[in-house]
Amino acid sequence: MIKTDILIIGAGPTGLFAVFEAGLLQLRCHLIDALAQPGGQCSEIYPKKPIYDIPGFPEVLAGDLVKNLMQQIAPFQPGFTLGERAETIEEQEDGTFIVTTNKGTRHQAPVVAIAGGLGSFEPRKPLLKDLPKFEDKGVAYMIKDPEVYRDKKVVIAGGGDSALDWTIFLADVASEVTLVHRRNEFRGALDSVKKVQELKDQGKVRLITPSEVVGLTGQDHLDGVVINRTSDPESDIHLETDHFIPLFGLSPKLGPIADWGLEIEKNAIKVDNTLDYQTNIPGIYAIGDVNTYPGKLKLILCGFHEATLMVQSAYQRIHPDKRYVMKYTTVGGINGFDGSKKEAPKAVVKSID
Amino acid sequence: MIKTDILIIGAGPTGLFAVFEAGLLQLRCHLIDALAQPGGQCSEIYPKKPIYDIPGFPEVLAGDLVKNLMQQIAPFQPGFTLGERAETIEEQEDGTFIVTTNKGTRHQAPVVAIAGGLGSFEPRKPLLKDLPKFEDKGVAYMIKDPEVYRDKKVVIAGGGDSALDWTIFLADVASEVTLVHRRNEFRGALDSVKKVQELKDQGKVRLITPSEVVGLTGQDHLDGVVINRTSDPESDIHLETDHFIPLFGLSPKLGPIADWGLEIEKNAIKVDNTLDYQTNIPGIYAIGDVNTYPGKLKLILCGFHEATLMVQSAYQRIHPDKRYVMKYTTVGGINGFDGSKKEAPKAVVKSID
Repeated sequence: MIKTDILIIGAGPTGLFAVFEAGLLQLRCHLIDALAQPGGQCSEIYPKKPIYDIPGFPEVLAGDLVKNLMQQIAPFQPGFTLGERAETIEEQEDGTFIVTTNKGTRHQAPVVAIAGGLGSFEPRKPLLKDLPKFEDKGVAYMIKDPEVYRDKKVVIAGGGDSALDWTIFLADVASEVTLVHRRNEFRGALDSVKKVQELKDQGKVRLITPSEVVGLTGQDHLDGVVINRTSDPESDIHLETDHFIPLFGLSPKLGPIADWGLEIEKNAIKVDNTLDYQTNIPGIYAIGDVNTYPGKLKLILCGFHEATLMVQSAYQRIHPDKRYVMKYTTVGGINGFDGSKKEAPKAVVKSID
Repeated sequence: MIKTDILIIGAGPTGLFAVFEAGLLQLRCHLIDALAQPGGQCSEIYPKKPIYDIPGFPEVLAGDLVKNLMQQIAPFQPGFTLGERAETIEEQEDGTFIVTTNKGTRHQAPVVAIAGGLGSFEPRKPLLKDLPKFEDKGVAYMIKDPEVYRDKKVVIAGGGDSALDWTIFLADVASEVTLVHRRNEFRGALDSVKKVQELKDQGKVRLITPSEVVGLTGQDHLDGVVINRTSDPESDIHLETDHFIPLFGLSPKLGPIADWGLEIEKNAIKVDNTLDYQTNIPGIYAIGDVNTYPGKLKLILCGFHEATLMVQSAYQRIHPDKRYVMKYTTVGGINGFDGSKKEAPKAVVKSID
């Protein structure tokens, strides 16, 4: 059982920044995220896109914003359960909550903060017979650890940035990379398209286009795919492979959280914006894009504010007898749980002779 | 008469960021500030202090944050009335407001956003007979334009960072700089104290400590000060000078805004935090440290959020018939009023042969 003060569901920018604000109040956090790395959409969907509306950054790449946030919260040593989706929540008699993931990992905390963004990003799956049978047995919808593919045969399907980027990356890792796409045209960053063209010209990746994967073969584990060429629908190709990775995009779904008894409105969780962004269940908060209230804007900077007010309320729930007196970081500095200390240089009092 | 869409009173971080969010909605802003430069406290009080709780910045100097914000809002060409204090507000029959400063500059806008921080920073003044008589006639409490002092004789009083920093700066500008302080000990950044010691040793500035300025002389314009040495109270020194600048710190005062008919609670303006941070007077908003509501935290990041929600409401007031559809900057980019355009590189659709 993982125990913490605030259990944060969703490790996007809002969830990450909540760790910082909680840390200032000496509260510890643990984050659960269905994705394989922190940063939410910023890392998974658009790490190289510039964002222009983060205050103080005329321009920042989404991936760099996440890196900065990770650095900012490092002194407060957050825990992470990554690649797992929060599935169930049970309120205990002592008022704490136990949250269990789809892989059975259990977490206990007196406060749960849902910072789930647009929801957990569920992969769009191709319509293929036997697909579920091979999931985690050769079929994967996102790449969590590229080393899994070292010296293996891999078939990737898709025509967007993910398909292009992973084709490029795995060209140096896997023994054989085949990219299958239903058109000849790819849609992605110019650099990526050019790079895949080069790799193809050098014989380092195989392209089969326009075509589609229409079947899977294997016993306990995938051992091949059947590819149908659009130009010659009669002659299917059978290709031996260890892995098939359809990268058809991710679509956000509120998912199991929708069944936690929270008030939901238009696929978002209703919160009390007059005070602390608490949901209808005391002790469960919702911050960032996942919540809704009158005038709500789904902006990262709003999530930062919501996270900050939320931890104040969480503090009261966790320490009903104490009163937190806010200190400005410019005055009080940052006291990390790792013993680190950051502090503004103090003024000296010194005589001039 | 200066006309604009949103008249922002206070050019601290919150007021500056409001310009950006308003710009995204194609609304123009003009800012009034009593200080001589934008940035509020960040520029005036602690430009070299690190702030640790701006989201995405593990550490940023207050002065750099202001520089970044100025760069971020530049495409939206804000106007500035600096070194003047907003004094009176009159609601017009057409629902707009006219705000007049202490120097008589008039501004008209359908929306007024008070982003006044802790209030306008009023200098702490020494208790000296004839002080008001010489204000702007040799006596100043802050330095707006250092060129005023070129080749002049200057007496500075004070023992903190401001007194030290301006002594250092004016040593190269004025013909003669004298620093008067009631103790031998100065309280400031170590570098500054050292530098003043050096300048004194080199004979470039004169230090008279421990002592106090106890009198002013002159007819229409200041021509000298009387200095009383603590060690020898009987023998006053008369020193010829063109300027006397007492730098005893600034203390925030809500000032004339307190008389605008706004609901005030604990020296802050009450706003509706359930929607748009509007005050009890429709069309007048208050954002950042100057406002109060249940759970309010006086943090810069909260001001950013409040500014963002405020401009949405302002838009409705200004364009009651239009509906603004929010576009993410990552998708829509930034379209400056100066014709500039910032935009994320678009994905290309390209065939791979």
